[in-house]
Parts: sequence; C-alpha cells; structure tokens
Amino acid sequence: MSLQDLNNIPGVTAEPDSATQNFVFNHTMLRVKNIEKSLDFYTRVLGFSLVEKRDFPEAEFSLYFLALVDKAQIPADDAARTLWMKSIPGILELTHNHGSETDDSVVYHNGNTDPRGFGHICISVPDIRAACERFETLGVDFQKRLNDGRMKSLAFVKDPDGYWVEIIQPQPM
Amino acid sequence: MSLQDLNNIPGVTAEPDSATQNFVFNHTMLRVKNIEKSLDFYTRVLGFSLVEKRDFPEAEFSLYFLALVDKAQIPADDAARTLWMKSIPGILELTHNHGSETDDSVVYHNGNTDPRGFGHICISVPDIRAACERFETLGVDFQKRLNDGRMKSLAFVKDPDGYWVEIIQPQPM
Repeated sequence: MSLQDLNNIPGVTAEPDSATQNFVFNHTMLRVKNIEKSLDFYTRVLGFSLVEKRDFPEAEFSLYFLALVDKAQIPADDAARTLWMKSIPGILELTHNHGSETDDSVVYHNGNTDPRGFGHICISVPDIRAACERFETLGVDFQKRLNDGRMKSLAFVKDPDGYWVEIIQPQPM
Repeated sequence: MSLQDLNNIPGVTAEPDSATQNFVFNHTMLRVKNIEKSLDFYTRVLGFSLVEKRDFPEAEFSLYFLALVDKAQIPADDAARTLWMKSIPGILELTHNHGSETDDSVVYHNGNTDPRGFGHICISVPDIRAACERFETLGVDFQKRLNDGRMKSLAFVKDPDGYWVEIIQPQPM
C-alpha cells in the first residue's frame, strides 16, 4: 500500500502536529516473575545489555532497562547513560516485584489468552534461519517454529514468563 | 549504578554472543478495538506515522505498523519502506480484529489489573510539561498527571483501549 493510501485511512493524521517533533517511542514494560531468568534470556539469548537498574525498596520492586545495541554505543558515565537510554527507541523495561520468584501465586499473563490485549514483542534478525537454529541449540521454547502454520517467514519464541517474542528478518527469505 | 555493577548482576551475560549482532528490538504489538480511534490517537496526539498495513481477509484481521519518526525518514517506495520498518527499533504494531469495534464483548485488557503482565509503553518527549499541557488541551485521558503521586517527573496517559502510555523526558526537570 502506498504512503498516500496509508495517509488516507480513516483516523490517520497525515501531517503530525509539530508539537510531537522529537517524540520517541522509548520503551515497553513487562512484569517478570524471576528477574535472574529473564536477564539471562534477554542478555544471553537475545543479546540485550542491561543499561540501568532502579530500586524502590519501600515499594519492594526494581526496574531493569535493557537495550539491544552494540556495546560500544553505551555511555560509560552513569548520568550520560541515563540521558541516552531515555532518548532512544527500543528499550525494554522489566519490572521485578521482589519475592515474586518464590511466590507460587505470581504467574504473569502473556496477553494471548482471555483477557487478551498486549500480544508480543518482536526482534528483527539478519538471518532468521540461523537465529532459529541457535535458539533450538540453546533450548529456547518455541510458540511457533518457522515451518509451523502458514507464515513460513516468521517464528515466535517464549521468554521465561511465556511472553511471546516474534522473530523476523527484514529481507524476504 | 555503574556499567560494571550492572554486568555483575546475577543472570546478566556481560558480553553478548556475537550471533546476536545486529538483532533489533523492532516492535511491540497491541490489540485495539476501534482502529480508527487508535490511529487518531497515535498519529494526531502522539505523532506516529502509519508506515504499513497488512490485511488478512480470510482470518478477518489487519495489522497496522506505526513509526514515531521524522516524515522525511520514511521511504516512499513500498518495498524499501517494508525493509526499513522491519530494520529499525521503535515500531508499534496495532492488531485490529475486524468487527471488534461494534462487538460489545470485545474489551481489551491493559495488563495492569489481574491477570497482570504487560504494563505500558513509553514515549520520551523533549518537554514533558508542554507535552502534558497539550494532552490536557486535546482532552486525553490521564492515568497519572505530573503532580499526582510521588513521582513528579513522569505522567501516564491512556490510549483509546485504556493501555497506559508513560510520558518521560530525558533531561531532569
């Protein structure tokens, strides 16, 4: 569909208000039960870097901010890193409510059964076949393998809480 | 917290596997009840551009991909635009199940009441006071105004389905 056609779809404001200039879609927040398992998954399996942690001891939770960037891009200075990570798109925020990892009553909802809402996050990779083979080797859980279903050009893996992570590659396969 | 301390937190892989090089956190998907209202909110209020639409008439749903970028960055050529929007971070995918807008049984869940999971998306803005004043003028629903609660440096607005959209500014206020 052409850009012109997209701009004519009902609801679309084709020329954004100049007041929104330099707005950035900075992050997406997910609650996680076991932060150690989640940090392992997002850093070791998917390649994110942990770039900030904020603790709220009175309210008994901590926030972990992760970026999927070349390590060389991450400012070493703490204040500069905070400014940077609030300025770029593609940050993942994980919320850990202290003690949830040992509380059997805490099971987070991935949004894909009733009540539905949030669906998934998505990682774009240069070579989806190589990426999926590596995920198999690492023992990652799949929601949909490349060859499952009709859409052979995408896969879904699951993070430790069962959130769906879509895997795509930009170039047609 | 220093980068070194962050890298020593249990679960963190400090040096990502080279196999994850050029992985990109591309998008977050949310289901929306009334696509026209959601497109209006995300394009007019927040400044996103609609950069791709994919229809699945047999399965009765459509996908809308939005980017919060300078219009000049959007490739005019359709194939180039698809490649581009799958390659960058910060894309928002909205899923519209056809007919949901007139189906009273469809109410999407924002993840912040039981069963909890997904929490919010976040938009970073250059001037949070100006942004929030504009949202007030536009009649946007607030979950938390700047002056509500303890955290005076952030706000939460609600999209047409009630999903929370955090508003932050990188620079300290």
